Amino acid sequence: MNKAHLSEHISTQFNEEIESIRERVLAMGGLVEEQLANAVTALVDNKGDLGEEVAKSDYRVNAAEVSIDEECNLILARRQPAATDLRLIVAIIKTITDLERIGDEAKKIAKMAVKLSEQDRPATGYREVQHLGEAVSRILNGALDAFARMDAKAAVEVVQSDMEVDREYEAVMRQCITFMMEDPRTIKRVMDLVWAVRAMERVGDHAANLAEYVIYLVEGKDVRHIKAEELSQTLAD
Amino acid sequence: MNKAHLSEHISTQFNEEIESIRERVLAMGGLVEEQLANAVTALVDNKGDLGEEVAKSDYRVNAAEVSIDEECNLILARRQPAATDLRLIVAIIKTITDLERIGDEAKKIAKMAVKLSEQDRPATGYREVQHLGEAVSRILNGALDAFARMDAKAAVEVVQSDMEVDREYEAVMRQCITFMMEDPRTIKRVMDLVWAVRAMERVGDHAANLAEYVIYLVEGKDVRHIKAEELSQTLAD
Repeated sequence: MNKAHLSEHISTQFNEEIESIRERVLAMGGLVEEQLANAVTALVDNKGDLGEEVAKSDYRVNAAEVSIDEECNLILARRQPAATDLRLIVAIIKTITDLERIGDEAKKIAKMAVKLSEQDRPATGYREVQHLGEAVSRILNGALDAFARMDAKAAVEVVQSDMEVDREYEAVMRQCITFMMEDPRTIKRVMDLVWAVRAMERVGDHAANLAEYVIYLVEGKDVRHIKAEELSQTLAD
Repeated sequence: MNKAHLSEHISTQFNEEIESIRERVLAMGGLVEEQLANAVTALVDNKGDLGEEVAKSDYRVNAAEVSIDEECNLILARRQPAATDLRLIVAIIKTITDLERIGDEAKKIAKMAVKLSEQDRPATGYREVQHLGEAVSRILNGALDAFARMDAKAAVEVVQSDMEVDREYEAVMRQCITFMMEDPRTIKRVMDLVWAVRAMERVGDHAANLAEYVIYLVEGKDVRHIKAEELSQTLAD
């Protein structure tokens, strides 16, 4: 949505509606980012209270999704947008679904943080998990930024970074399995950690989805089932 | 989409387009059901080959999604549907996203079936997992059936059955943890099973999403963030 395009609109009010909905998506994104960051902090810094707060605030993300979804449906019905605007609205409907699911994953991390805060902690804390949590937070931030600026190049980078996160996830998961094998008494606790780690990996996947919608909007190409390695080449074609 | 409504259409061709797209969604649903059933069979009956076949056929589900998605965008742009038709198209866009993700989960189950087929099997086979796999298959079938008949009552039952599946999932997961604690040598193998079990639970969640879109279409109420226990009451209001 560059300025040249926006200026093509006949109706200024319609422009304002589109802008307002984009802002609301970004605000919802900010809320989800906050939930994720707090969930990771609760886990890593052993703050059960913060975890409970995140789990309880989940409704705010859900409410944002329902409300933006309704707004999109209203715009579709009332304005019958064409071409770029139509694509934008459809992409927003998908975007908020993924944002809501990232909120769900943040809630899962938060719940595991609460459970883990009630148990013994390993001497290392959960530093390896902190790193993964920070990496997915960056990916989410990058995806939202690519959406805000409608920047396909940045979106491609997000999809590619998610591949790195997947590798990091595999490494952390192997470590979890090693812990359990070395000391079977830790199995229950490590399994709680496993679910938090898995949830982080899912956040990365959803963030990559967000980035793919941006690529679709800007390039008009559906890249969802193209391997990240081939993405730059496909867009250059 | 009852007949009375369909007869209101001015354009017969539009009716046909809508019907054709509904049929394609159901065909995609049938394909996803097949993938899921084969993945569960591969796991339970120790058929690595079948697992590999499922993992390889995943592209068919992805292709169906991309193609139906394009068709929906075309209809939105060309027909600018109003009211019920618009809601249907938007619901279909969401429906195929969830169907595609169920396809992803089937692929995960299939991959774990391949890994497990290369390892020792417990004397009990994986019967407890078979039961869960059958339960989520039934839920998916119920959700597609509710969509085909636009039956909100059946859709509510699907959402409520998913709650039962979640309880069953918890029980199977506890069993997995017990296995690992009793015999730590099984940890790696049981973790492969854990991922398959988790994927089944996710299938149930996505099937419940499908059912919620049907409820939204028929009742005009967004029930996605209402607890399953309260669903019947909400719809009676």
